[in-house]
Amino acid sequence: MATASPGRPHPATGAWLPGDPVGSRRFFDFPRPMALDAGTTMAGITMAYETWGRLDADGSNAVLICHAWTGDSHVSGPAALGHPTPGWWEGVVGPGLAIDTERWFVVCINVLGGCQGSTGPASPHPADGRPWGSRFPVVTIRDMVRAQARVADHLGVRRWHAIVGGSMGGMQVLEWAITFPDRVGAIVPVATCTQSTAQQIAWGAIGRQAIRLDPKWRGGDYYDAADNDGPWEGLAVARQVAQVTFRSDNVFTDRFGRGLADGATHHDSLDLWQRFEVERYLEYHGDKLVRRFDANSYLIIGKAMELHDVGRGRSGLDAAMARIVAPTLVLGINSDILYPTYQQRQIVDLLRRQGTAAEYVEIDSPHGHDAFLINLEGVAPPIQHFLEHVGKDA
Amino acid sequence: MATASPGRPHPATGAWLPGDPVGSRRFFDFPRPMALDAGTTMAGITMAYETWGRLDADGSNAVLICHAWTGDSHVSGPAALGHPTPGWWEGVVGPGLAIDTERWFVVCINVLGGCQGSTGPASPHPADGRPWGSRFPVVTIRDMVRAQARVADHLGVRRWHAIVGGSMGGMQVLEWAITFPDRVGAIVPVATCTQSTAQQIAWGAIGRQAIRLDPKWRGGDYYDAADNDGPWEGLAVARQVAQVTFRSDNVFTDRFGRGLADGATHHDSLDLWQRFEVERYLEYHGDKLVRRFDANSYLIIGKAMELHDVGRGRSGLDAAMARIVAPTLVLGINSDILYPTYQQRQIVDLLRRQGTAAEYVEIDSPHGHDAFLINLEGVAPPIQHFLEHVGKDA
Repeated sequence: MATASPGRPHPATGAWLPGDPVGSRRFFDFPRPMALDAGTTMAGITMAYETWGRLDADGSNAVLICHAWTGDSHVSGPAALGHPTPGWWEGVVGPGLAIDTERWFVVCINVLGGCQGSTGPASPHPADGRPWGSRFPVVTIRDMVRAQARVADHLGVRRWHAIVGGSMGGMQVLEWAITFPDRVGAIVPVATCTQSTAQQIAWGAIGRQAIRLDPKWRGGDYYDAADNDGPWEGLAVARQVAQVTFRSDNVFTDRFGRGLADGATHHDSLDLWQRFEVERYLEYHGDKLVRRFDANSYLIIGKAMELHDVGRGRSGLDAAMARIVAPTLVLGINSDILYPTYQQRQIVDLLRRQGTAAEYVEIDSPHGHDAFLINLEGVAPPIQHFLEHVGKDA
Repeated sequence: MATASPGRPHPATGAWLPGDPVGSRRFFDFPRPMALDAGTTMAGITMAYETWGRLDADGSNAVLICHAWTGDSHVSGPAALGHPTPGWWEGVVGPGLAIDTERWFVVCINVLGGCQGSTGPASPHPADGRPWGSRFPVVTIRDMVRAQARVADHLGVRRWHAIVGGSMGGMQVLEWAITFPDRVGAIVPVATCTQSTAQQIAWGAIGRQAIRLDPKWRGGDYYDAADNDGPWEGLAVARQVAQVTFRSDNVFTDRFGRGLADGATHHDSLDLWQRFEVERYLEYHGDKLVRRFDANSYLIIGKAMELHDVGRGRSGLDAAMARIVAPTLVLGINSDILYPTYQQRQIVDLLRRQGTAAEYVEIDSPHGHDAFLINLEGVAPPIQHFLEHVGKDA
């Protein structure tokens, strides 16, 4: 099913994308411009995606997985050319696993605005071939989903057996089910919400300001810096804000406590820049992201999450959720401080109130929001069971 | 009891301290250098403080209030020369109030490292009269408390009837009771902890990096910038991180929801820099702090909180807390995400285990950590009752 569109150099000019830009990804170049929520149209869109397994003759076994903020299409598989890290849901997606690639035709698409092959701020602007940079428009979760629908058309997937995603992936899951109810058989939104809260917006806004504060961001037009320099420090600080909200107080205490980094003594600690272990950890995660992710994509995707509100323009939350007909499995995490479980229970309540089948499973984990990437033994079985059984009795 | 030490210009060179630098504050110039935990001694220390009421002839009615991160000595009283805002605990401290200044001799001292009259990074270095800037040493909560003890000596207060403080103020309260058990009659630590956790350190570290990221910080030596310019943007971002942790998810939702600032429409919101209401709120708080607080003081005091660990050098937490003999009232806030109530209950448990009288009152408030500054109707009565009755049956 993979497109014949040739691989080509990834448009990003930064240093965060080592190696072969193609790898196992496939690319689909949109033949037509796409209208955006911002009111403009975007020409020259390319979407990068990966697939696993085979689409049945009747096209009934397709499962779409939607990735989170800094994720990409590489759900499963080893680190390889074009993919500096193994699949982000290794252990959930693969032959014989919960999302069994021997049974399901699994698809994951890098989001519009991203930097792992799909068109984003680092991509060449069709008018002049130079990076979009500050010219890249704000996109919404709905824009991302509409772009994915074109990829589905391209792949010959008329209707997904199920769509699964966590965090921002879960926002896409909900928008898919609301926007294209006849194309979605079932949904599994994980650790996500119907609309971002003020606190979620606040965390995003602080990270955004950290990037802007970095003089190397240069208003978003840093791609032609002589030495590939960019707002890496600002991006790292932004990531650190997120990283704290992705985890939990008790796991930080268990892992780091008050330990000092670099074998420092107490006396060393009486220095403004001597790090505690938790700081070393945060800096590690900040640096790791900087090497693989574009700061402008971080901004654009982060803003899309803040704008996420399934009720917008649809006469409110209840009316929007009433459009969902797909049976739903919602997963929440009891230690999630970023997307607290009341947000997942709200999804279930709104769906049940209108008669849509919805079940809720709460993952018992100390790991906070990131548990959906960590506690696979809790996440995988309910998803597996749901994918196997949903629609059978309908 | 106020010292006769003359008022003098505040040493800060920035623009955040408008008006008369003296106001109702008094100043005490240390006649001798003070040894710091960092292993050095500091000469030329001045401490700024305020007092309310009169010290009894037997010196038995003195109550010390310890302020938090960006607080100062101005606990009570209107905005006035030298004090751009009213007292930070108006409604708790004053004639006829819970901490009754007609009954108690109330003292509050700006901490060492601060920027509201006590020696801090903006103060003149005794060697050359230029601001300490990057030369200012890291200080600890214990250093702050030892400096306060000298002010107590100066005021003729041999023993405090009680010491009260929230957040970083509560850290000082605990250190007072551990370091000077014979000088402390009773303590009221509020929304605080025995040692900072990894998560608390993480939030502090992120704010610290935001300030460093601001090129106008200049390694801490920004005081002689031609136009009084400084790392205000970095400080504002740091403050915003703190501000989110000071409040709560549900209050943010109730107050701001997903409202847009500046009367913006949905279409306006599709701009990377169009703000939601919560962003406007955070920026307001960031800007407000910038106008009244020095970035280097913010760094130094923040680091002191991260270094806070009553067990350090005292054979651990149990042994340190065993030094406390003062009857204790601990206040916690049920919605506090920064200093969760388990930290307050730990104080009570450690004290009771060794036979020290300790009671716990949990403030029921949606406002998060800042509730100790907001829900005065919850905070004031237990403090009033405790101050009146403690020591009576001893």
